[in-house]
Amino acid sequence: MNDIPQRLAELAVRVGANVQPGQIVSVMCEPGKESLTRAVAEQAYRAGARFVDVQWFDPWVKRARIAHAPEDTLEFVPSWIGERMLQLGEQRCARVGLSGPTAPGILDGLDPVRAGRDRLPAIRESVQVLDARTTNWTVVPAPNPAWAALVHPDLEPEAALARLWEQIAHVCRLDEDDPVAAWSERRDVLVGVAGRLSDRAFDAIHYEGPGTDLTVGLIPGVRWIAARMHTVDGIEHMANIPSEEVFTSPDPERVDGVVRASKPLVLQDGTVVRDLTMRFEGGRAVHVDAATAGDTLRTIMDRDGGARRLGEVALVDGQGRIGALDTVFYDTLLDENAASHIAIGTGFPFLGAGEAGGRINESEIHIDFMIGSPEMRVTGITASGDRVPILVAGEWQV
Amino acid sequence: MNDIPQRLAELAVRVGANVQPGQIVSVMCEPGKESLTRAVAEQAYRAGARFVDVQWFDPWVKRARIAHAPEDTLEFVPSWIGERMLQLGEQRCARVGLSGPTAPGILDGLDPVRAGRDRLPAIRESVQVLDARTTNWTVVPAPNPAWAALVHPDLEPEAALARLWEQIAHVCRLDEDDPVAAWSERRDVLVGVAGRLSDRAFDAIHYEGPGTDLTVGLIPGVRWIAARMHTVDGIEHMANIPSEEVFTSPDPERVDGVVRASKPLVLQDGTVVRDLTMRFEGGRAVHVDAATAGDTLRTIMDRDGGARRLGEVALVDGQGRIGALDTVFYDTLLDENAASHIAIGTGFPFLGAGEAGGRINESEIHIDFMIGSPEMRVTGITASGDRVPILVAGEWQV
Repeated sequence: MNDIPQRLAELAVRVGANVQPGQIVSVMCEPGKESLTRAVAEQAYRAGARFVDVQWFDPWVKRARIAHAPEDTLEFVPSWIGERMLQLGEQRCARVGLSGPTAPGILDGLDPVRAGRDRLPAIRESVQVLDARTTNWTVVPAPNPAWAALVHPDLEPEAALARLWEQIAHVCRLDEDDPVAAWSERRDVLVGVAGRLSDRAFDAIHYEGPGTDLTVGLIPGVRWIAARMHTVDGIEHMANIPSEEVFTSPDPERVDGVVRASKPLVLQDGTVVRDLTMRFEGGRAVHVDAATAGDTLRTIMDRDGGARRLGEVALVDGQGRIGALDTVFYDTLLDENAASHIAIGTGFPFLGAGEAGGRINESEIHIDFMIGSPEMRVTGITASGDRVPILVAGEWQV
Repeated sequence: MNDIPQRLAELAVRVGANVQPGQIVSVMCEPGKESLTRAVAEQAYRAGARFVDVQWFDPWVKRARIAHAPEDTLEFVPSWIGERMLQLGEQRCARVGLSGPTAPGILDGLDPVRAGRDRLPAIRESVQVLDARTTNWTVVPAPNPAWAALVHPDLEPEAALARLWEQIAHVCRLDEDDPVAAWSERRDVLVGVAGRLSDRAFDAIHYEGPGTDLTVGLIPGVRWIAARMHTVDGIEHMANIPSEEVFTSPDPERVDGVVRASKPLVLQDGTVVRDLTMRFEGGRAVHVDAATAGDTLRTIMDRDGGARRLGEVALVDGQGRIGALDTVFYDTLLDENAASHIAIGTGFPFLGAGEAGGRINESEIHIDFMIGSPEMRVTGITASGDRVPILVAGEWQV
């Protein structure tokens, strides 16, 4: 297992970001993720990178800010932080993100209103650069001791970390003889499905499963895609590793029925929402219920006009490796790829050109939650009302 | 001892950088220095900082670069790194540096020529900002496990780190009832001595001690100072904590005699030069001898025209706490404050206005080495040839 960080780093550099010779590579790191960061640096230089620029974010320093900074400073971001991000785009750099919590519960006990005002490490220039498609980027999981303790609280620290690395190696297909080929094959399947779903131009999709009977309208001209993307200069990259999903942004005005989450929903600050159900009418979640943290979620969903509407529907088949582990990873990169999911909040305007893209949902939030299970049946509904099976018992029908 | 990092951080923020309400505070950190970094962040926010921006440097990522990066990229620095430093000056920020090695020997076994081409974390914009005196800054020591193992190789890791923290607490006067008052008092003594030395306008100083008989000419109009400095806006700050020295930049053309180092000289990459002696003629070190690493040092001193001439003479009295510990710390911040020292290479042009400053030595290098001891006698020589005792048996005579 000792060379797993190097092999994951190689996958991130060669397949994920697809680093080109001469590129500057930005790596987003947190204390605790040193081993994978250094491996990514080595692999990027081996791939011919001109420079590897590691940007660190320390949740403990954020805690110090929320606890002690003057009230009127909490939204402030120094000019050079956004400037650097814009330069990453202008200079056509590669970007590697490392997911996985390093300090769960770090803001516990602090004023949630003050905490909410500091949006870092999120900056609005990231969205600009993402939309401009000027950087080839990826996000991969970075196991670390705090994350391992969260996922495997019953194991000793060393065993927990070893177990998490083992799971990450498996879901990243590093236990295959040729992980690059394995991802190439998987990507082709998902890109094929996404293409066929786009071609079918369904008017709506219908989810049926335990506690779920939900019809979601689609917008004509808005595409389905997999995580394979291309920059404006034509560099192919894979935005997430692992990625098991095909997804689109639905019509925020046409969602009706009930849906029950099939896994706990973990919010960004670590809050766990259990036994979540929602009822939609005319696109809006008019009823939101949960066994835990329902108030928190409802507060978030009242933030703006788009926060009770859908921005994403994603389908995950039974071939994905994350769902089979039956583990809550407390990390969206992994948890959202465990099963079919939907997201309340903002959608992806780049999926539809012109007027079609303009109809996609807008919000400050984007929260994915799992609704898929082996029992779930997903059906496409054509403009003329015909029903076409899409996903049955975890198998693609298209 | 548990609150020592917080108390050192408070000293760095309140006395060292003297952070003003509303200032952005830049902290330079390396993996291993997390505890002091977070404490500095907390203390800076408590002092009213608008934002604490931690910039990380990871020697292991540098190792990956030296080992694997394409040959023609090794001098490259992304534009935003220098731009950030210039903005720190333009936006009148505070800066806190944390000294102490975190990865001694990290570049061992790599091509030293490739290693020499990557100057990071040093950037030329730092010198610009320093010269412009637009930022209030300080450097304090940051104990970490790798450094502790280097200084105390005979102790177990935990005991070594505890011992290093204890020593740092002592030399930073954190074991005083009121460390701020202790530094204020010490600073006043050193500022007073520096002022009197400047006023005396000696033509030269004469060092006499075991193996040392050296006369160093001084430049009229070039001041002696202590580590207390002022920004262009008048913010007083203390550039080093601890600091026990008063120093000036001498006449690079008028240094004659012999000098013997009183402690091992540790180069930036960890190389140790033992039993160093030099003979100067007309300002130039014409003979350099050492029991270890003499060749390395001579190679460095042949780099440019100023590298065999003096850029600094510094006096440290017997009240300093570092020398008494009789410990080699492998860190210039501490080792240079152990005893009186001189430095080959570049001087400090801001010590003399106009023509006087223009005569100060220039070089790419600046290497301090200890020459002081309780037996050393330092004498001032006036323009008329009178001899005035300055430092005898560790006691100021001026």
